[in-house]
Amino acid sequence: MTQQTVSEPRNRGGLEGVIAASTALSKVEGTEGRLIYRGYNIHDLARNASFEEVAYLLWLGHLPTKTELVDLKVRMLENRSLSKDVEQVLRTLPKNAEPMDVLRTAVSAWGASSITGQPTLEQAIALTAQIPVFLAAFHRIRNGLEPLESHPELDQAGNYLYLLTGQIPSEEHVKALNAYLVMLADHGMNASTFTARIVASTGSDIASAVVAAIGALKGPLHGGAPSKVQDMLKAIGTQERAESWIREALARGERLMGFGHRVYKTEDPRAEELREMARIADPEQFALARRVEELALAILEEQKPGRRLYTNVEFYSAVVLASVGLPSDLFTPTFASSRTVGWTAHILEQVVNNRLIRPESAYTGPTEATFVPIDQR
Amino acid sequence: MTQQTVSEPRNRGGLEGVIAASTALSKVEGTEGRLIYRGYNIHDLARNASFEEVAYLLWLGHLPTKTELVDLKVRMLENRSLSKDVEQVLRTLPKNAEPMDVLRTAVSAWGASSITGQPTLEQAIALTAQIPVFLAAFHRIRNGLEPLESHPELDQAGNYLYLLTGQIPSEEHVKALNAYLVMLADHGMNASTFTARIVASTGSDIASAVVAAIGALKGPLHGGAPSKVQDMLKAIGTQERAESWIREALARGERLMGFGHRVYKTEDPRAEELREMARIADPEQFALARRVEELALAILEEQKPGRRLYTNVEFYSAVVLASVGLPSDLFTPTFASSRTVGWTAHILEQVVNNRLIRPESAYTGPTEATFVPIDQR
Repeated sequence: MTQQTVSEPRNRGGLEGVIAASTALSKVEGTEGRLIYRGYNIHDLARNASFEEVAYLLWLGHLPTKTELVDLKVRMLENRSLSKDVEQVLRTLPKNAEPMDVLRTAVSAWGASSITGQPTLEQAIALTAQIPVFLAAFHRIRNGLEPLESHPELDQAGNYLYLLTGQIPSEEHVKALNAYLVMLADHGMNASTFTARIVASTGSDIASAVVAAIGALKGPLHGGAPSKVQDMLKAIGTQERAESWIREALARGERLMGFGHRVYKTEDPRAEELREMARIADPEQFALARRVEELALAILEEQKPGRRLYTNVEFYSAVVLASVGLPSDLFTPTFASSRTVGWTAHILEQVVNNRLIRPESAYTGPTEATFVPIDQR
Repeated sequence: MTQQTVSEPRNRGGLEGVIAASTALSKVEGTEGRLIYRGYNIHDLARNASFEEVAYLLWLGHLPTKTELVDLKVRMLENRSLSKDVEQVLRTLPKNAEPMDVLRTAVSAWGASSITGQPTLEQAIALTAQIPVFLAAFHRIRNGLEPLESHPELDQAGNYLYLLTGQIPSEEHVKALNAYLVMLADHGMNASTFTARIVASTGSDIASAVVAAIGALKGPLHGGAPSKVQDMLKAIGTQERAESWIREALARGERLMGFGHRVYKTEDPRAEELREMARIADPEQFALARRVEELALAILEEQKPGRRLYTNVEFYSAVVLASVGLPSDLFTPTFASSRTVGWTAHILEQVVNNRLIRPESAYTGPTEATFVPIDQR
């Protein structure tokens, strides 16, 4: 009973090239290395917009006026306290639980207590505001500290850092984390977004759809690997050791973390912006990361010419998130805190003119088997 | 800020007719009204097999010998106690929470405490054994009762009824619920199963994948509607009132619950077996349901000739589950307790020769927009 019997497993290319939905939210042009949100280039947004402005843009289709932005910020602030129910659930989970599992459970418990009916924009705003609160509370509880109240003067990026540490964060750290949150908010029809849309297509609620997306993002083939970049940089340790470490890792047949992407065949436009944010957030960590990147690209080109492996979003995501002070097991949950905007915008888009997403399967098992009762087996 | 702006929402038919994966688990032949699990006709399994035998078949590819079946039953029994963590989470959630939300949260909390690494058969067995325990514990807690210990002499169907009530259930009720659990265990590439496979395809864990599937099954376009059949039967009340009630409902433009299916263009083979189970489980409730079914089919054929609307699985599912004593808000969670076998079998199948499921989207938004800083908006 330890081995699984499966006849001819043949999965058909992971739906590569199949158009599963239309969306007006974001477009990824992998060959050109271009990413837009509702027409706006990601470079402009990363340099000039707050996370709240970008959330507004994705949810509502246009950049907010000053009044509209203030209105959104007020609504988010109203949703930045931790309910007793969710706090109790966070205290019940083991202190060594994976933060993605904790986030999935907290959002599910929040949904069970707070959400009824079809997905709404109000719910999307509330959930986006709540997620950093859940993460920071769990992080403090697992370290034997009490969760903090949100700071009324701080926005999403700054308040998240404040809730983790109890310190008002530096301007550089807020700027770097804000740009990270802006750039990770949406990215076409990736696996977690697709998961959220399928759940929404059944007529289920927004918490169910986001909980499902969190589970998908957890997978290392999707959002679950940035902490491995940090592990690599820690293992390398100094600029002097970088070249020999990289050559030895490749000689052992290991993959270098943070290079190459299924869609981008040139540099990921987000990597360029994150590189600048990493430089601002912590010049010392940046210097090592930059040296590792340069060497890795040169050695990969030398050893695998023509493979066109470029720095991907995970490489400088890890550097930025470590530089602003996050422990590496909060990297993917922090990614989730940003992508919740994209997930909820896709969910709201899906439920307009909804149709149940239900593909077919090719059956590869036996067509006819004769049942023999257990007594005669 | 209350209206959502979406340019040209055009969802492409919900992937209808697109083959998203290969599977050796089950095949649905909608035109013939035939359903097989690994070659075995659903009629043979519903009449002759226990839920445990069918779980073994789906997970492992063949019907178990007597020894293999005993081994599986022992493993399931070992996983039928409620952990303190999950019990605490169940006590924290509001007593009026939707049981599907509670189940989603309980499985997520269980995963956070108990699951690491890639999906395994051991985990599939444990989760399948745990789900009825979670449901029954929450049901008792919300009614001010203490959760019970599982009964070591009872199998999945009987123990579930025992955990809910504290009474050893009748043979008829166990037989009817067992047949229900057998028939709902798998059904090709439905929306929740597809969701579970996508989450598994990212390299995520079994709890994340099942939590996602529970969220999808909750939707009324998928598994979330059988309680509405029961509402309808309660509203009709007596055989005498059935005809006028049905005609008046149709005249008001309402849909009759429990008729028609996206895939089956003839009677769902499960409906036939469930009809017999309903007859056994509670002859009185059955008589009303049977009369309503006969009238509904006749009146639908009279009013919508050629539409070929047949009794679907939800109609007699509701009657069977009500007859064995379940409250209507446990119908869909009980469906989930059965389908967990199919979900986990699909997850285990997916992770063999896995490829990330990541389709594409058609972008319908603006291609170029000029960023204006907030101060100039």
